[in-house]
Amino acid sequence: MRYTSYRHDGVDRVGERRGDRLVPLDGVTDLGPSTTTSRLAAATRLEDQAVDVAAVTLRPAVTGAQKIICVGLNYKAHIDESGRKDSDYPVLFTKFPGSLLGPDDDVVLPPEAGFLDWEGELAVVIGEAGRRIPESAALDHVLGLSVANDITLRDYQYRTHQWLQGKAWDDTTPLGPDVVTLDEASATSGRITTTVNGAVEQDSDLAHFVFPVAHLVSVISEFTRLLPGDVILTGTPGGVGYRREPQLALHDGDVVTVTIEGVGAITNTVRAEAPTG
Amino acid sequence: MRYTSYRHDGVDRVGERRGDRLVPLDGVTDLGPSTTTSRLAAATRLEDQAVDVAAVTLRPAVTGAQKIICVGLNYKAHIDESGRKDSDYPVLFTKFPGSLLGPDDDVVLPPEAGFLDWEGELAVVIGEAGRRIPESAALDHVLGLSVANDITLRDYQYRTHQWLQGKAWDDTTPLGPDVVTLDEASATSGRITTTVNGAVEQDSDLAHFVFPVAHLVSVISEFTRLLPGDVILTGTPGGVGYRREPQLALHDGDVVTVTIEGVGAITNTVRAEAPTG
Repeated sequence: MRYTSYRHDGVDRVGERRGDRLVPLDGVTDLGPSTTTSRLAAATRLEDQAVDVAAVTLRPAVTGAQKIICVGLNYKAHIDESGRKDSDYPVLFTKFPGSLLGPDDDVVLPPEAGFLDWEGELAVVIGEAGRRIPESAALDHVLGLSVANDITLRDYQYRTHQWLQGKAWDDTTPLGPDVVTLDEASATSGRITTTVNGAVEQDSDLAHFVFPVAHLVSVISEFTRLLPGDVILTGTPGGVGYRREPQLALHDGDVVTVTIEGVGAITNTVRAEAPTG
Repeated sequence: MRYTSYRHDGVDRVGERRGDRLVPLDGVTDLGPSTTTSRLAAATRLEDQAVDVAAVTLRPAVTGAQKIICVGLNYKAHIDESGRKDSDYPVLFTKFPGSLLGPDDDVVLPPEAGFLDWEGELAVVIGEAGRRIPESAALDHVLGLSVANDITLRDYQYRTHQWLQGKAWDDTTPLGPDVVTLDEASATSGRITTTVNGAVEQDSDLAHFVFPVAHLVSVISEFTRLLPGDVILTGTPGGVGYRREPQLALHDGDVVTVTIEGVGAITNTVRAEAPTG
């Protein structure tokens, strides 16, 4: 199953995607704390209100997340290129709901940005609440998977030893196009690539996770109750622009595509933004 | 004005505190994105439904925050005791809504905790939305002030270089008792103390902020739109238990009080918790 958040005729909907058609779920406007896996599965499909994907505006795959938890340094190649040591605990930080964009939206290049960088990532969406979830049961708490670009302002990220202000800029993190349930997509293997203006910049496989999805769900749920709609971004492979020689930053007009085998692809154009109050 | 979030007869309310009485505001159940300073000021006071404070359960001063942003190392004495360098940008990290407790609630000592520590802090609650707010206008966006204890699991905080998993445990961060508007309380001066079992462990003044409240609001709003109900915890003075010789951790039964002149006081008992699923 693929769940898609979209807007059509001014109304926010969540639909089941069937090929190029979206069938709205009765009474579901957002993925969030109330949309459990079981509720979504049982929701009435409003077949007579189905629309073509081309006729709608896709919203971020999750619009009602209470928590967006990001994992850093979760592929060995990215640990190495970043000059970091291995850790026995995942590196965790957060974004805000306002950070997220739809899968077709432009990524904002803020006027303050000194170095905007890409980070193609698998996103995990929680479907059943849980605290201190054992790793063996963790995937039962997952609604499905999506594709994200954890766009980062590197100069802000490193202003102090804590990364928030480089990671949580409004309107920088596309997420979508769908949330794909685990019977259709794998959380443990599958090729993940990032291209910039058509050139492959990141090329890895989910099999290379240092901390697999089930482990992340278990570790995070030790300190906070995971709720439906919570999103975990699972870290990026090697190949970010900041670690190249010479470095490669994103500029106005650049087109970035993140593709994950079996999950989907998102393509976003970088757009320089005038400052807004 | 003092706004208080409470539960009475099973109903969640926000009230104006007048001495020992709480007068509920018509139609306001939580402080959050919809509760602007002006809406709260204009809300009808339901005088005939006023209750004694002693008859209600106080909830966290803010229950509908979309963002809880914490500032680290914002008093020189705490920078020095932590062995950190001065920075020209505030150290920023986050908590989750589930981290917060009411001002009278017990602080949970999780079974996993190796070192639970206190951090008395001034909390700032946003009342009017804004992005890229100039410092000169920043206090106009503040609804008011409150008292927080940024309880921290030190061993988890330092598991990696990012602090989230030591800061965002569920049910660890009391916030309250009220949100006090700036005509009644100062954001720039006032004594702040933390006592543990009656002994003064932190004793400073808001005048010692490295980054004053107006600067924090301005800096944070550069990267994300601040919304009503968003909370900023402004950092703790010197005197945390982890930096003592010998170190002092919190244990089951310890009683911690944080007091800020003109804002209020919160007293919480530490309670060891059995693990829950």
